[in-house]
Parts: sequence; C-alpha cells; structure tokens
Amino acid sequence: MKNDDTAGEGSQLMASCDIVIRFSEVDSMQYVWHGNYAHYFEDAREAFGKKYGIGYNTIYSHGCYAPLVELTFNYKRAMHYGTQARVDVHYRPTPAAKIIYDYEVRDRATGELYATGHSVQVFLDRDYQLMWTNPPFYEAWKKKWIKQ
Amino acid sequence: MKNDDTAGEGSQLMASCDIVIRFSEVDSMQYVWHGNYAHYFEDAREAFGKKYGIGYNTIYSHGCYAPLVELTFNYKRAMHYGTQARVDVHYRPTPAAKIIYDYEVRDRATGELYATGHSVQVFLDRDYQLMWTNPPFYEAWKKKWIKQ
Amino acid sequence: MKNDDTAGEGSQLMASCDIVIRFSEVDSMQYVWHGNYAHYFEDAREAFGKKYGIGYNTIYSHGCYAPLVELTFNYKRAMHYGTQARVDVHYRPTPAAKIIYDYEVRDRATGELYATGHSVQVFLDRDYQLMWTNPPFYEAWKKKWIKQ
Amino acid sequence: MKNDDTAGEGSQLMASCDIVIRFSEVDSMQYVWHGNYAHYFEDAREAFGKKYGIGYNTIYSHGCYAPLVELTFNYKRAMHYGTQARVDVHYRPTPAAKIIYDYEVRDRATGELYATGHSVQVFLDRDYQLMWTNPPFYEAWKKKWIKQ
Repeated sequence: MKNDDTAGEGSQLMASCDIVIRFSEVDSMQYVWHGNYAHYFEDAREAFGKKYGIGYNTIYSHGCYAPLVELTFNYKRAMHYGTQARVDVHYRPTPAAKIIYDYEVRDRATGELYATGHSVQVFLDRDYQLMWTNPPFYEAWKKKWIKQ
Repeated sequence: MKNDDTAGEGSQLMASCDIVIRFSEVDSMQYVWHGNYAHYFEDAREAFGKKYGIGYNTIYSHGCYAPLVELTFNYKRAMHYGTQARVDVHYRPTPAAKIIYDYEVRDRATGELYATGHSVQVFLDRDYQLMWTNPPFYEAWKKKWIKQ
Repeated sequence: MKNDDTAGEGSQLMASCDIVIRFSEVDSMQYVWHGNYAHYFEDAREAFGKKYGIGYNTIYSHGCYAPLVELTFNYKRAMHYGTQARVDVHYRPTPAAKIIYDYEVRDRATGELYATGHSVQVFLDRDYQLMWTNPPFYEAWKKKWIKQ
Repeated sequence: MKNDDTAGEGSQLMASCDIVIRFSEVDSMQYVWHGNYAHYFEDAREAFGKKYGIGYNTIYSHGCYAPLVELTFNYKRAMHYGTQARVDVHYRPTPAAKIIYDYEVRDRATGELYATGHSVQVFLDRDYQLMWTNPPFYEAWKKKWIKQ
C-alpha cells in the first residue's frame, strides 16, 4: 500500500494519537466495526495537522478544501471494547497536488499491529474546483518541512 | 413526555418511515446502540418535511436554520439486527417559535413499541441568532396545515 | 430534568472527561450534529465507571447488562469543529434498580454551558430479563460509595 | 482496484440498493463525510446477502463470522444532502477462502459515478480462528450460483 517510489524522498514527518475503543464502536462479534477506523485515521491526521501546522483550519484559511479521494484499510487483528491503541500517521511526499498519508494502528502495550491504511487528499478551491497544482501555502509548507 | 396541553389544538399531521436495523448499528449485547435512534428520528423528520413541505432545504431557503435544542428517548424494547420497524412522527402545534415532534418506533409486523421520543427545534437566522417569533414562511405553513 | 427529590441523598460522585470536536462530527451548519452527544455522554460514563469501579466490564462480569432506557439532551449553545469541552457526569442515587446520571458539557476555557443531559439505565440478567431489584454487586457498590 | 484476473470467471452476481443522503451524513463542506461510505457499502452487501441467501445470519448460522480484512474507497464526485444514489455491489469469485466485492455508487437520475470500492472478507470459526479453506456451506453456495 505504501508509495515505495516516494520512499526515497526522505520524509520522516509523522504524528501519533492515542485511542481507546468505545463500547458503541464494537459490533455484535465484539469487534470494532470496520467503518470506525475512518474516525481513528481522522484523529491521527488531526494530530498531524496540529503538530505541523497543516490542519483543516489552516487549509481553509488559505481558500482551499482538501477532501479525501482515496482511502484504504487493511485489518490485521481485531480491536475490542477498551483496547488501548496508538495511531501513527506518516506523511508521504509526492510531487502531485495531493496530500498522502499512511497509517498504522498498534497496541500501546504490545506493539501488535491492528490495522494499516492509506489516504489521498486533493485540493479544491472555494468554488469546489480541483486544483491541478499545489496551492502556494502548501508549497511553502513543503519547503519548510520536507528535505529535498 | 407529550405536551398534553397542546393535544387539544387538533393537529393530526404525521408522517412515517420504514427502517431496517443494520449490522453496524447493533452493539455487543446484540441490541441497537441507543445513540442510533437519533438517526431514525431524523429519517422520520425527513419524511415529514417531504410530505408537508417543511424540510431542511425549505427552512434554509427562507434564511433560517432549525437546530434541535431538546431531544428525549424512551427505550421500551430492544431492536436487533434485521428488525423491521416503522417510525411515526407527530407534529405538536405550539404558539412558541418552535417545531415540536413526538416519535414512536414500532415493529412493522406486530406493532410492538420499541421506543418513543420527543424533539424541539428553534429557529436561527443566517447569523445564527435565535428568532423569538415564527419566521413568516413558518406562520404561512402553519396557517395552511394546522386547523385553528 | 434533574431528580430533585433525590438531591438530598448526598451523592457527590462525579467524573469528567475531555472531548475535542472532530471535523466529522460537525454538520453543514458548522454545528456538532446533535446525535453525537450520545457518544460524549458515553465517554463520561466510561470515565465514571473507571474512577469508581462500575464500568461495563464490571457489570458484565457480574452477569448483568445495563442498557439505557431513557436519555435526554438539552442543547444550550453550539459546539464547533475544534471546540475543547469537558463533560461532567454526576451520579444520582435512587432506591430503584436503576443507574441514573446527569451530564453537563462545558467549554474548558470559559466554563460556558453547551448542553445538559440525563440518562437512566436498568439491569438485565444474562437472559435479557429485567431485574426488579438491584443485583448484589451493585448494592455492595452503593454501600461503599454512597453516604446513607 | 478490480481483480482483473478473476474477471474471466464469469460471475454476474450483483445486487443494488438505493440510498438517500441524510443531513447528518454531510460535513461542513456540504459533502458526505467519507467515512459514511462504509455504511452504504454495508447496505449493498445486505441487499446482496438477501438476494442470494448469503447474509450475516446465514453465515453465522453455519458457525462462521466473515469480518472485513480489506476495504478501499475511491471518491469521484461529492454527494450532498438529499442526493439520491444507487449502490451496486458485484461479487468477485476467487478460489481463496474469501468473499470479495466491488462497489459502484451512482446517481440514480444521471448515472454519474460518485465512488467505487472494494472489500475482502475472510471466514472465522466460532472461536475467532481464521479458516484457510472455504466452509462447506460457502462451497455449496458457490456451486449453486457461480458458473464454473
């Protein structure tokens, strides 16, 4: 799932957040219902945005939206009610006008892998039109954070 | 829970929608998780809005929002995965600048009662300020539909 | 909404949890969608259960379920994306075989009130039959924690 | 995302369900929040299971669970509040002990494509152990439905 062709670009940008599985997130198999992972990944992106100054509000304040256009989950092992996990999100540099992240959800105590994931966001302007090149604020952000 | 003091005002306005309980809405007790009822009530309000021309888009097109300010659930009997239910929503007339509904969720086959509920909405203008009197479009709507 | 007749029983048992409003919890009005409060109240009950040893797993390990049979929300002021709030949950003693909580959601910085709520849970045995008297473990718990 | 190597196996098994986008499913961009698609795909699988006798209850009655282990979304065009869409789910035969589906979400009126997706389920026995070969009921189901 990882963009191996971009792995050499040297980004080490990553952030983490802790989650605890809620009773309401567990289905009748006692498993976390798979759709809930979209929330956990969102929590991780939120942590990333806060850490590196690239959150929704920053994007919006520069006249853009950044909707997801691709999302992938691979479930390795079930989480249950009360499971204490950590979500790591890794930024994947790309020359395209996109924001790409990889995710890993692991047990906080044992490090066991619960799930991995991948997401791609594009930029829209305030009229909801796709931007084919990076908006200037994002170019500046990349210059600041990504070793090139 | 019902506003018995308004029961005499003679509204018979009601609408219904059918629901089928999803796998993802059932918790580890095999019960519908209580928070999901907010969706079922929304579905019923949606059916009401469509039937009587008072949906979110109509309200919005007249420069208003109508957020919920009160919501009550009484759970009588558990629904399970696959349960086929009907949600009835009854409009409760009030002179206040509010939209008040009562809800009943029943088994479609047996008529057994699963839950009841009650909601109150107020009007905000486009600047999110509370409107203390009914907006004109709503007064007109009431004149048309409510026997007075 | 509060059970004022029980206010004199002297329970000071309460717990709190912090919440931060997610992007996905906000609707097209930029408000938290009302149904999400069920999650915030659950988070607060979870904190209470952990603090006082009366969580879902404890209840379940004693052969019981404790489903909600009543739930009330009063929305005072909208929360938005990024709002940092605290949910306080207060235990309300009752002689009935019930678990009753009141809730308050407040801004962490200003203390402003966003919402209040109330919930009632009953006990079911492992065959999903209603228990008309408190299960022994809950009686013991009350003896330990509630001044009588 | 499609398993092109299996396209020649000749399955034409598919089912559809209609969805209407709820107010609560739309985010502050006026778009359906991406995580909600997991529900729409579930609705389509449900329709498939009902049409071909391979729903959750059938699987469970044969002593198995079938959790998702992989899920992919590709978002082509935003859905909004009130959008009336149809979800088509296509069964993808595979010799592996898996259930594989592809999804398409289209506008009911115009046929425009909103999203595509892909999911993979495995079989667990009642002790939550992975089954490396197809359970007999599923082999029988495939014999009945898949031209081989």
